[in-house]
Amino acid sequence: MNIAVLVSGRGSNLQAIIDSIESGFLKAKISVVISDKEDAYALIRAAKHGINAIFVDPRKLGSKELYEIEILKALKANCCELILLAGYMRIIGKTLLGQYKGRILNIHPALLPAFAGLNAQKQAIDHGVKVAGCTVHFVDDTLDSGPIILQRCVDVKEDDTDETLADRILEQEHKIYPEAVKLVVENRLRMEGRKVKIIK
Amino acid sequence: MNIAVLVSGRGSNLQAIIDSIESGFLKAKISVVISDKEDAYALIRAAKHGINAIFVDPRKLGSKELYEIEILKALKANCCELILLAGYMRIIGKTLLGQYKGRILNIHPALLPAFAGLNAQKQAIDHGVKVAGCTVHFVDDTLDSGPIILQRCVDVKEDDTDETLADRILEQEHKIYPEAVKLVVENRLRMEGRKVKIIK
Repeated sequence: MNIAVLVSGRGSNLQAIIDSIESGFLKAKISVVISDKEDAYALIRAAKHGINAIFVDPRKLGSKELYEIEILKALKANCCELILLAGYMRIIGKTLLGQYKGRILNIHPALLPAFAGLNAQKQAIDHGVKVAGCTVHFVDDTLDSGPIILQRCVDVKEDDTDETLADRILEQEHKIYPEAVKLVVENRLRMEGRKVKIIK
Repeated sequence: MNIAVLVSGRGSNLQAIIDSIESGFLKAKISVVISDKEDAYALIRAAKHGINAIFVDPRKLGSKELYEIEILKALKANCCELILLAGYMRIIGKTLLGQYKGRILNIHPALLPAFAGLNAQKQAIDHGVKVAGCTVHFVDDTLDSGPIILQRCVDVKEDDTDETLADRILEQEHKIYPEAVKLVVENRLRMEGRKVKIIK
């Protein structure tokens, strides 16, 4: 399966996917990495592993639709069947969703439906929860609300800051994102309404 | 510390508190169990352990305020310093909150802030989460939203129904509710805004 990874930043979850492919855990190929930021370190990571990595400048395109059409061209040119969002800081619009419905995954640093949106780890700390975590989910037309594939808990410690909690959540993200992608690649997920059943 | 437990149903969390006192884990006394339902099995449980158990009929009192004044009388008569809600199906009003601010605890079968309100386990199943759990929190003037003392995760299994998930969450409720009460009794909780810090 040909995968596209959309990034905006350092791309540590991209690295986790690359590592899981290189180790043989994941039988798939990243055929393109696309960034909306020219200086995203994720682009350098991709290049280091000989992966096709491109910057698509949203400022040069007049609208979200035109921007996503440009991304679609890159996806089609690279025969991508699955899109992974990995720290990609834009909301997916109708253009991409229409073409890749049920084939876009995201990872979010919270136990959704709690703490959707930006700065989820800080939201968790500020709310005073004792358990946090991360979620891999299908992307739908509402922010961080699509059907959930995998979740993992992380205990909040007494002396946690946003940063220390984020670091411990990230360790779990790096585990469950490849696991979730593997389930998709192996066609082991079945939808029942908004529930995602995992076939053994 | 003299504790009141407010119930409406079978009172399995009441039983967990009773057991933790009888085993010596919790150094406290349940001085009264109050039910808003005459036929609550929790009243029988209390009586079996020689605990003062009373039914206060909300229908005989004209308003929530008058009902809570009646409960307050029972609390004062029994020198209660702490109130535990254990499957008590009424929202605590200003009258009780005013007199017992920061001294009312509730247990909720979800990882709050997710799935507040009724049928939390069914909400979790319907949402398709992969991780559920339970929360002990201080009661404030908003439903299931007060400062969180303890939380515990429970994995959702592929074949879980509302009932099987509720049963596994309940096992954890029976562990964390006595633990949370012990922290209160031992004066080991400190408030920082809405965060609850646990002193070692």
